[in-house]
Amino acid sequence: MTLTSDAPRRLESYACGAWVAGTGKGQVLTDAATGDAVAVIDAGGLDTAAMLEHARSRGGRALRAMTYHQRAGLLKEFAKVLMDAKEEFYALSSATGATRTDGWIDIEGGIGTLFAYSSMGRRQLPNTRLLIDGEPEVLSKDGSFAGQHILSPLKGVAIHINAYNFPCWGMLEKLAPTWLAGMPAIVKPASQTAYLTELMVRRIIDSGLLPDGALQLVSGSIGSMLDHVTAQDVVTFTGSASTGRMLRSHPEIIANSVRFTMEADSLNASVLGPDAVPGTEEFDLFVREVVREMTVKSGQKCTAIRRVIVPEAVSEAVIKAIGEKLAKTTIGDPRAEGVRMGPLASLAQRDEVRARIRELRAEAELAFGTPEAVDPLAGDPDKGAFQAPVLLHCADPLNASIVHGVEAFGPVATVMPYRSTDEAIELAARGEGSLVASVFTNDGAFAREAVLGLAPWHGRVLIGNRTTAKSSTGHGSPLPQMIHGGPGRAGGGEEMGGLRGVHHFLQRTAVQGSPDMLTAVAGKWVRGSATCGGNTHPFRKSLAELEIGDTLVTGTRTVTLEDIEHFAEFTGDTFYAHMDEAAARANPFFEGRVAHGYYIVSIAAGLFVQPDPGPVLANYGVDALRFLTPVYPGDTLQVSLTCKEINPREGADYGEVRWDTTVTNQRSEVVAQYDVLTMVARSWPMAA
Amino acid sequence: MTLTSDAPRRLESYACGAWVAGTGKGQVLTDAATGDAVAVIDAGGLDTAAMLEHARSRGGRALRAMTYHQRAGLLKEFAKVLMDAKEEFYALSSATGATRTDGWIDIEGGIGTLFAYSSMGRRQLPNTRLLIDGEPEVLSKDGSFAGQHILSPLKGVAIHINAYNFPCWGMLEKLAPTWLAGMPAIVKPASQTAYLTELMVRRIIDSGLLPDGALQLVSGSIGSMLDHVTAQDVVTFTGSASTGRMLRSHPEIIANSVRFTMEADSLNASVLGPDAVPGTEEFDLFVREVVREMTVKSGQKCTAIRRVIVPEAVSEAVIKAIGEKLAKTTIGDPRAEGVRMGPLASLAQRDEVRARIRELRAEAELAFGTPEAVDPLAGDPDKGAFQAPVLLHCADPLNASIVHGVEAFGPVATVMPYRSTDEAIELAARGEGSLVASVFTNDGAFAREAVLGLAPWHGRVLIGNRTTAKSSTGHGSPLPQMIHGGPGRAGGGEEMGGLRGVHHFLQRTAVQGSPDMLTAVAGKWVRGSATCGGNTHPFRKSLAELEIGDTLVTGTRTVTLEDIEHFAEFTGDTFYAHMDEAAARANPFFEGRVAHGYYIVSIAAGLFVQPDPGPVLANYGVDALRFLTPVYPGDTLQVSLTCKEINPREGADYGEVRWDTTVTNQRSEVVAQYDVLTMVARSWPMAA
Repeated sequence: MTLTSDAPRRLESYACGAWVAGTGKGQVLTDAATGDAVAVIDAGGLDTAAMLEHARSRGGRALRAMTYHQRAGLLKEFAKVLMDAKEEFYALSSATGATRTDGWIDIEGGIGTLFAYSSMGRRQLPNTRLLIDGEPEVLSKDGSFAGQHILSPLKGVAIHINAYNFPCWGMLEKLAPTWLAGMPAIVKPASQTAYLTELMVRRIIDSGLLPDGALQLVSGSIGSMLDHVTAQDVVTFTGSASTGRMLRSHPEIIANSVRFTMEADSLNASVLGPDAVPGTEEFDLFVREVVREMTVKSGQKCTAIRRVIVPEAVSEAVIKAIGEKLAKTTIGDPRAEGVRMGPLASLAQRDEVRARIRELRAEAELAFGTPEAVDPLAGDPDKGAFQAPVLLHCADPLNASIVHGVEAFGPVATVMPYRSTDEAIELAARGEGSLVASVFTNDGAFAREAVLGLAPWHGRVLIGNRTTAKSSTGHGSPLPQMIHGGPGRAGGGEEMGGLRGVHHFLQRTAVQGSPDMLTAVAGKWVRGSATCGGNTHPFRKSLAELEIGDTLVTGTRTVTLEDIEHFAEFTGDTFYAHMDEAAARANPFFEGRVAHGYYIVSIAAGLFVQPDPGPVLANYGVDALRFLTPVYPGDTLQVSLTCKEINPREGADYGEVRWDTTVTNQRSEVVAQYDVLTMVARSWPMAA
Repeated sequence: MTLTSDAPRRLESYACGAWVAGTGKGQVLTDAATGDAVAVIDAGGLDTAAMLEHARSRGGRALRAMTYHQRAGLLKEFAKVLMDAKEEFYALSSATGATRTDGWIDIEGGIGTLFAYSSMGRRQLPNTRLLIDGEPEVLSKDGSFAGQHILSPLKGVAIHINAYNFPCWGMLEKLAPTWLAGMPAIVKPASQTAYLTELMVRRIIDSGLLPDGALQLVSGSIGSMLDHVTAQDVVTFTGSASTGRMLRSHPEIIANSVRFTMEADSLNASVLGPDAVPGTEEFDLFVREVVREMTVKSGQKCTAIRRVIVPEAVSEAVIKAIGEKLAKTTIGDPRAEGVRMGPLASLAQRDEVRARIRELRAEAELAFGTPEAVDPLAGDPDKGAFQAPVLLHCADPLNASIVHGVEAFGPVATVMPYRSTDEAIELAARGEGSLVASVFTNDGAFAREAVLGLAPWHGRVLIGNRTTAKSSTGHGSPLPQMIHGGPGRAGGGEEMGGLRGVHHFLQRTAVQGSPDMLTAVAGKWVRGSATCGGNTHPFRKSLAELEIGDTLVTGTRTVTLEDIEHFAEFTGDTFYAHMDEAAARANPFFEGRVAHGYYIVSIAAGLFVQPDPGPVLANYGVDALRFLTPVYPGDTLQVSLTCKEINPREGADYGEVRWDTTVTNQRSEVVAQYDVLTMVARSWPMAA
């Protein structure tokens, strides 16, 4: 079934809160397999300056008013809405040439990224509007002057200019960190597959969940939008290097130091380890991965393997094995039963791929495939953009340049032999910066040497071996937790990588002042700040009553040798530094027998705990515990406990409270310092 | 004394391991105060492509062969060498127009940055060649596929193009993180004050401490150097926005996605809080700071206060107070007794400043000073680049644009009134991105509102109040620990900020594979990796004998109610969850009385400790302790302890060892997980 039974649909842009059709004649977008018209695209007449202003004044304001956990919750809601509508997307996805498997990567991979960012936001970020970056820095000897880095959402708009190959994932993997950070976005999909992006945006808008201005869509050219960008905006680009360079040197991007993240196609390599000879699991995994990377999305992935770097001795065997698998790849209309590889996105794209193959053949011989001919299992070879997979072989890659610089963006790869690990690394580096490389080996030493050699040239390196045969997500799949991007030819950008990707939409600011002022600004207690609390034990206060700075200074306890010996006997920890005066003295850190660190924190708890049932529900952990001064028999310890961070959970009756904890001795020396982590009820008694 | 008694010295470049004179005629550099010739600068004939290659092949290789602590040690050695030679630098610094105070910022501030980075490198980084970034990520349900980000030094060269106002600090604040990261550098100082940079580079080279190729100097134009940059190189620029834009759009920088960090002059603001009325300490501190920022380095600082944003009601009082202080500023040859403010860098610079003042006066009236006339205390007003301080007043700054966009890079500032906090923030933001803003207030609520409003537009915000009157380093001083840079007009760059600045010279790579492979690559044990160890208790192994993955699985201990009660009584921690069955059951996390977390870690130590004197010297801390499953009476606990990281210290008989520690119960549920931190002897018995 195609969606083109009648006159093709005119795509609309979503601008300033309304769906609007372009005023121009438009460009007809065709089905990759059938050549039928799918839609007409045009964004003529859009007021792009007004769109930017709408995003900044409405969307940004609304998103910034939410906390990180609230925005994380929003991502999850969208993900659910989109997941419910997924079959609609799959149906339309076929028109792009995508098989069900290809569509899964794009559609469910994209929705999965929303789920992942939602989860990271809730688990790894506080439920606040302001993020703290790193620990406070003491900047004066007396401690009265200190520093703290903070991260604030930029007050502009993120303009995401995306590629045609992943109309869903390409949008969602950028929207997730953008929205989590608190920035609105304008999405401009590549024309060829914009109808699928448009459908997904409709489903998001239709949900009614999104604040006005948080998302706008340009179906067509962005026109003069970039003439209006400011220092608070962000521009990201995924696509060809040539377009990327043009955008990066746009006068207003340069003039305003606009953050520009670029992710371009690169000549990614996969390296077969010398241990992975034919007959090993790694050899088979390597062959399977090369074939998969060549054929998934018909090779139209910026992360696809383009250069197949193998030990010289096995290059023939590799070519044979890859050829045999490629021969089984059934090509055709992705809607037809039994088709494993769909067409390229368009006939123009197919012509482009064929032209690049001809260029590559100046340095590489044809090892498998029919570059200019194809016999699809289903579909018309003249109307559909079908391309047979092509394997090339470059026998002398160290003296070649085209194979390291020219990319056929389709089911095409080149095998190249290497004679030493250094040579394999050198060949990979000839790509001048790639998104990803992979290494197939079961030899840890080779893996280390190869990965460390490849690392400066790559944003990601995947190691494949028998252990991960079933669990690996593979060479070509960017994951929300890991960075996606690479140096040089790959564009020099970084996306995702967990919360690293959120930072691209935040301004880091170093704040300097007195500890009290830093506490007031950051909402997190900085050591050296004033404390408060009165007569009520802070463990008697619920989240609603607790205040940052609430402090308990405890009574004292004097450590005795009997205590130490008793603790040793009870716990079984009879380490010599606690038990043997002479041996303890011989230790470079101690002047004699010392108390156990665990004894110190245990009696500290005895000093600070309020025992009665109350709002403090549990101690769930301790962070950054350091024993700074040895404790000897006769020392008298005292604890100071200060409420440092209060983090209520969305939709829960309790939240996390972090307590700055300092144990001092009778000379006011700090004996131990740490954060105690507790769960505290929102109110007390708790709601039933 | 000037250094120009004879024919002016020809500056040399340091290229490919040799000092070379330029082949051109050269430009004469004059003393800012006397107009005498100081030196001739020219870099004609330099083979800049060879310099890049020399840095990459020699310097980079040598630096990358060192560990982080070794490179940190090198920084300290240089810092000492330069500190010993500081009077030479001070003497020559006078020719730039710098007073002793100005020189201190440049010379000792720069050397201090080396010391600071040396210290941060030793304290905050491991003593390895590879840095790990963040925690491992579990990427498959069965844990067999995981990820770890690593950071590798780029294999190119850092080209630092610096400004004339800080010939020493400007070089050293960039060299410190560059070298610590393991990258070689080529320094290109601005011509006007390059003689001082050249002298400092000579002292560094003379020391013989630096690996060949780690530092080169271009005294003059860099010629076609940027035509040869690659994706592995880094370019930084400090100076005017116009030059910065030109460099940023250089075709090879664009084409190769070369990392480009820019730090440009900005129209930094200082905001006086509404509480800081005349008569308060904050009012006086504000006035003092504005005057200091106007006159230190004769206002030639990219961080200087240009816009003085004050409550409308006190603007007259502010102008009067600033004027009174400025009137006392003695101007002249910095070598003369009693001079507080030297000349600008050159007569051309003075003409430039005067032209800008004339522009500003279209929107601002003259409030203090004689823009076109000066009467120096010492020195010839026609030969020296003296400029009287000038205070302007813009009464309607919300309807002005020149005062927010045109900078007079000298002792010039404009007072502008505000009527609400939002208006103050709006005025500061009109600068379209600044390096720094300051807020003078003793009101925490105002500080919070102002700082959070200013943050998206600023790289740094300083809060001044009575508490930091003596300890604050002031509005204009970038510090090694805090980031320096700002969005938009300020260039969009970030420098320093502690180890954040080191990351600019490292490539981040996401490595994916089995835990074993990640351990092999990163040299740090990843959970899920194989363990080793044999029959020897790991506490019996010195640093020389320990291996990553060495593991102890302990015997077991069954928890009893008597144990819990005894622990409670002994420590004093009688929290109800341990003591009161009914209250514990009412708690949302527990099914009944539970063991203390501190009890669990205490008996865990009892299970894993080897008590005899041996190479493990001390437990100095615990990181990331989490209690994951409640422990009830009758539960049986067991500990697994695995050597995770080994970090020998340079020049010490011991080093840090981090142990991954997991406590499980009889159902193999993880009860507690944490890192135990120990000091371990390099060999055992220890060297005497």
